[in-house]
Amino acid sequence: MSFSEADHQYMTLALSLAAAGRFTTDPNPNVGAVLVKNAQVIGQGYHRQAGQGHAEVYALQQAGSAAAGATCYVTLEPCAHYGRTPPCAEALVKAGVSRVVIAMLDPNPLVAGKGVAILESAGISVQHGLLTNAARALNPGFLSRMERQRPYVWLKMAASLDGRTALANGVSQWLTGDVARDDVQQFRAQSSAILSTASTVLADNARLTVRQTASNTITTLADGGLRQPLRVILDRQQRLTGTEALFSQGGAVLLCYDAAQAAKQLSTSKVRVTQLPLAVLASDQFDLSALLKALHQQHINSVWTEAGSTLAGALLQHGLVDEVILYQAPLLLGDCAQPLAKLGDFQQLTEVPHLTLLDVHQLGNDIRIRAKPTTATVANPTKES
Amino acid sequence: MSFSEADHQYMTLALSLAAAGRFTTDPNPNVGAVLVKNAQVIGQGYHRQAGQGHAEVYALQQAGSAAAGATCYVTLEPCAHYGRTPPCAEALVKAGVSRVVIAMLDPNPLVAGKGVAILESAGISVQHGLLTNAARALNPGFLSRMERQRPYVWLKMAASLDGRTALANGVSQWLTGDVARDDVQQFRAQSSAILSTASTVLADNARLTVRQTASNTITTLADGGLRQPLRVILDRQQRLTGTEALFSQGGAVLLCYDAAQAAKQLSTSKVRVTQLPLAVLASDQFDLSALLKALHQQHINSVWTEAGSTLAGALLQHGLVDEVILYQAPLLLGDCAQPLAKLGDFQQLTEVPHLTLLDVHQLGNDIRIRAKPTTATVANPTKES
Repeated sequence: MSFSEADHQYMTLALSLAAAGRFTTDPNPNVGAVLVKNAQVIGQGYHRQAGQGHAEVYALQQAGSAAAGATCYVTLEPCAHYGRTPPCAEALVKAGVSRVVIAMLDPNPLVAGKGVAILESAGISVQHGLLTNAARALNPGFLSRMERQRPYVWLKMAASLDGRTALANGVSQWLTGDVARDDVQQFRAQSSAILSTASTVLADNARLTVRQTASNTITTLADGGLRQPLRVILDRQQRLTGTEALFSQGGAVLLCYDAAQAAKQLSTSKVRVTQLPLAVLASDQFDLSALLKALHQQHINSVWTEAGSTLAGALLQHGLVDEVILYQAPLLLGDCAQPLAKLGDFQQLTEVPHLTLLDVHQLGNDIRIRAKPTTATVANPTKES
Repeated sequence: MSFSEADHQYMTLALSLAAAGRFTTDPNPNVGAVLVKNAQVIGQGYHRQAGQGHAEVYALQQAGSAAAGATCYVTLEPCAHYGRTPPCAEALVKAGVSRVVIAMLDPNPLVAGKGVAILESAGISVQHGLLTNAARALNPGFLSRMERQRPYVWLKMAASLDGRTALANGVSQWLTGDVARDDVQQFRAQSSAILSTASTVLADNARLTVRQTASNTITTLADGGLRQPLRVILDRQQRLTGTEALFSQGGAVLLCYDAAQAAKQLSTSKVRVTQLPLAVLASDQFDLSALLKALHQQHINSVWTEAGSTLAGALLQHGLVDEVILYQAPLLLGDCAQPLAKLGDFQQLTEVPHLTLLDVHQLGNDIRIRAKPTTATVANPTKES
């Protein structure tokens, strides 16, 4: 399959349109579409939020009757099913477009190709596979849910240059600066859920909400509000009472408690709270794989984890982290300060979690490192036996 | 003082010429010179090594009689004294150049301006201050020796993403990859001295020499050999015997021992070894300020430190580090592993060493962070009392 320079250029435009929905489409994917006729863009659109129009629909509306004979560039295979909106593939047929270029097929193996089939059976020329990697990068969470039946898991950590999260006495506030904190907000705002622990919530009276600031680029839903991810809090001993700042605003809260206990009654709160019983493993940790399964069943695409060294270590040890986002502040907290991840003792370097760097950036006077664990299985089997 | 675009362009050329000498000029500065006439480069040169010609001399040789009426761009004020070579200022006068543009004056406050005076008294138009910061960046060590009467101190450290240098059992080899190791070689090769400890030498049987590889860019001296920095080893208990690999090749070795002891007789060795008695402070550390003074007296411009967490911590605590070079390998060694810098316990974040990032780069699958300590004084005064 060969694509022209113009094809690349219009698909790049469609990709950038798609990205405009990244704070609001969840649990739907980010999609962008461009209609081109006689080397002119005659329509463009992106999906903004579930229940609203798909990208192709907005592009077709903009083009009107000019869409007949046009080429449509779309970042994801047009849908073929009647959901909250009619199938886009049929809308493209009806509008009379003559060619459709698709970055990637529908990731759900049960439906992939059906949109293409509708288009082709109507005599439309269809090509796919243009800038597929860039299209995949738009939707890590959605693709994970569809292809792996589990959410994409980010592990956010913040430390000094010597890998410490706090002084021995617990002092740690404001290790990183404004730019890094805005960056965290933007990741939170792109996640389906934020995972943390009662310890973190209690230590910092953390709200774990998405907040707009003068310098971040988080966009709102159609009603002007911010989409607030589900906040998933591991609270084995049910220490939270419902009166903490966490419960005063933001999205729904899912409290995970030890399945061997009875669920505690919470005092009333301003946000919807549900309680999830979870098995506790012999090592005194929740069954985190079971948690991810439960979140998948709730259509959670992605999980942004912000917690302490214990949960970080447990997720890493069980191979459940898809991406580490490590913020480093240019401080040295010294050898007495608190560790980044509790991983236990290792005897050989082959046993430790290895990562592959994705990118490294300076954010203000801080550093952000994105890396992918390359040891997907249990990193330290000796600790498990 | 205003400079034209052409002036910037020719001085940029002179700066890049100067950099070609960075592995070989020590203890002299890196200097480059360009002669321009009628918008043509008619001569260029750089200083390669002490005892050989200065940059201006090579540029004048290349230009020959065409130098009359030319403009000379030079990264450092032409010298005014009879050293191993006649003064360059006089050579420029004799050649009849009509204009000299200088990036920075001689950093030695006792001689700064004398080269300019010779040129001006001969009727040559002289301007200085073009691309001064870039010219200063060529010679951090030389400038430190001239302006501060102490060497410029790099502290090299290598750790995992969680700030650990080795597993608890000491296993640590090959944390970083080839690109990072070549980078270390290039820093070593630009330093006047390499500072380490007997512990490091004994643990790794470290040679601490400069080595050319297929991928590094280290250049040789005129005789084809590599310039080997002085290796300064802190050996308080005089554990080294003279038979270690350190003594088998490379440049001279300076062994620092406890001034309260008698110097131990070393077995013969293949490199020149001198012994330096140094005071040991109450905290069981060498008097590192006294060490830097002694190195200054030996015309050491810069010191590249490669050692363990104890020396790293001591240098940082005493405010003796000018620049931290931290290599991070994408591993997580965990909470039981060994710390990056022994700094003791802190009660508040204001007490810890703060740094300013200079740059952050990905080197292969590793990261290099360059940062400048902003706490120049004792970082942890409570530890000192």
